[in-house]
Amino acid sequence: MNWDKVHHDATSWIKEAGARIRESLRHQIDISSKADENDLVTNVDRETEQFFVKNIRKNYPEHKILGEEGFGEKITSADGILWVIDPIDGTVNFVHQKRNFMISVGIFENGVGKLGYIYDVTRDELLSAKKGEGAWLNETPLSPLEKVPIEKAIIGINPTWVTENRRIDYRRLVPIVKQARGARSFGSAAMEMFYVACGWLDAYISLRLSPWDFAAGKIIVEELGGKATTLSGQPLSLLKNSSLIVAKPGLHEYILKNFLEGYEEK
Amino acid sequence: MNWDKVHHDATSWIKEAGARIRESLRHQIDISSKADENDLVTNVDRETEQFFVKNIRKNYPEHKILGEEGFGEKITSADGILWVIDPIDGTVNFVHQKRNFMISVGIFENGVGKLGYIYDVTRDELLSAKKGEGAWLNETPLSPLEKVPIEKAIIGINPTWVTENRRIDYRRLVPIVKQARGARSFGSAAMEMFYVACGWLDAYISLRLSPWDFAAGKIIVEELGGKATTLSGQPLSLLKNSSLIVAKPGLHEYILKNFLEGYEEK
Repeated sequence: MNWDKVHHDATSWIKEAGARIRESLRHQIDISSKADENDLVTNVDRETEQFFVKNIRKNYPEHKILGEEGFGEKITSADGILWVIDPIDGTVNFVHQKRNFMISVGIFENGVGKLGYIYDVTRDELLSAKKGEGAWLNETPLSPLEKVPIEKAIIGINPTWVTENRRIDYRRLVPIVKQARGARSFGSAAMEMFYVACGWLDAYISLRLSPWDFAAGKIIVEELGGKATTLSGQPLSLLKNSSLIVAKPGLHEYILKNFLEGYEEK
Repeated sequence: MNWDKVHHDATSWIKEAGARIRESLRHQIDISSKADENDLVTNVDRETEQFFVKNIRKNYPEHKILGEEGFGEKITSADGILWVIDPIDGTVNFVHQKRNFMISVGIFENGVGKLGYIYDVTRDELLSAKKGEGAWLNETPLSPLEKVPIEKAIIGINPTWVTENRRIDYRRLVPIVKQARGARSFGSAAMEMFYVACGWLDAYISLRLSPWDFAAGKIIVEELGGKATTLSGQPLSLLKNSSLIVAKPGLHEYILKNFLEGYEEK
């Protein structure tokens, strides 16, 4: 496999898809049609995924595709080369804010992440990683993630997870927020992993994500020395939903050991 | 008072201050000096406030100034014309993210808000309002805020406020997060009020803010038909710290009535 060509194609398709989405938003803002907002996000989500599927099938007919909108195939194993695509991560932000949504694309070979991309569409910022070669914010190489004690850490976590919920005893998570310097929540897992990769957040925790939410982020953060697992410390699967903790080295182990020991995925 | 001239001056000083901060960040990123991060934010905070104070004293010697960094005067009443300035709202974001921090400037006459500005420095987006004339995002006029039921609302609230804390029984706030469509937290009160003004968040709640955190946001959101009070429904004071709920019309009353009745400020 010519991974340089795959990287070149993936980058160019992501940027073209992003430009199309910006154009849709501009048009929609022009017509100020509030009633159409849900239709808009549905259409843009589907059209963006179809755009990727069409290009991948044409150029890489032997590759498999797992996409949130279901235009790829039914995936029962991670064998071969697999593109995992979320055409719009953060759809509620897309509708409410017209910003803070990401295109997320992870490319795996036999389950091993090779190329990862998170594109902040409205900021025109592309985060990318090539396994073993590094990660970049646009053209700027990113530094490896450094250890940070929890007292200096900013944690990405949605307020709902520190209130009673059916996924976890919320009292496990409360002391994480209490010990950290601060907590943030952006409403897009890909955006929050983008921030972890850039060192702007130190960890991100969610109790329920799909593979397309974290596929790209996992590749990028791990390339920078961070860690991404389920909250019980298990490897993330491309074939099923799970919880997620992605964090800087050291902090990941610290949180698992001190707050999540014995946690079992529900 | 020639309010058009004040508006022109305020806008031009805010943009110049923002350009200086972007230059400081660019320089600091060039030298990659992590140890200096806290010095940087302290220096930029102080220099930015001094820049405003110098310009205001020169052009409007009779105006009073209340600034977070204390270069204004000691304010014991809201009489006369008062500038309320937060040179960098979101200092933790400034240090950790080099984005998501705001310059916030509110100008009051005998306690009544006349001009309000929140400037997203790294996005170069200026939100502004003139009392009775409207509000703008850069040059684009903003629409009045529309009513929204809580089930469709996105609430800005820090995760710490829905865990045990000494300001409020957190069990009052939990059901707000549960009933809403979603929750977000950006780590800058001015940024969250910016989002409420633009309709990107439907409400923002905090238990402990200073007047410079909310002075500009209050003027802008109220100009658009939203409401801003303490959590017990009292008017916000320019002379003391308090809690804050700022929200779209209808939603503000709904939250106060259904979740905060009998709450007393601690």
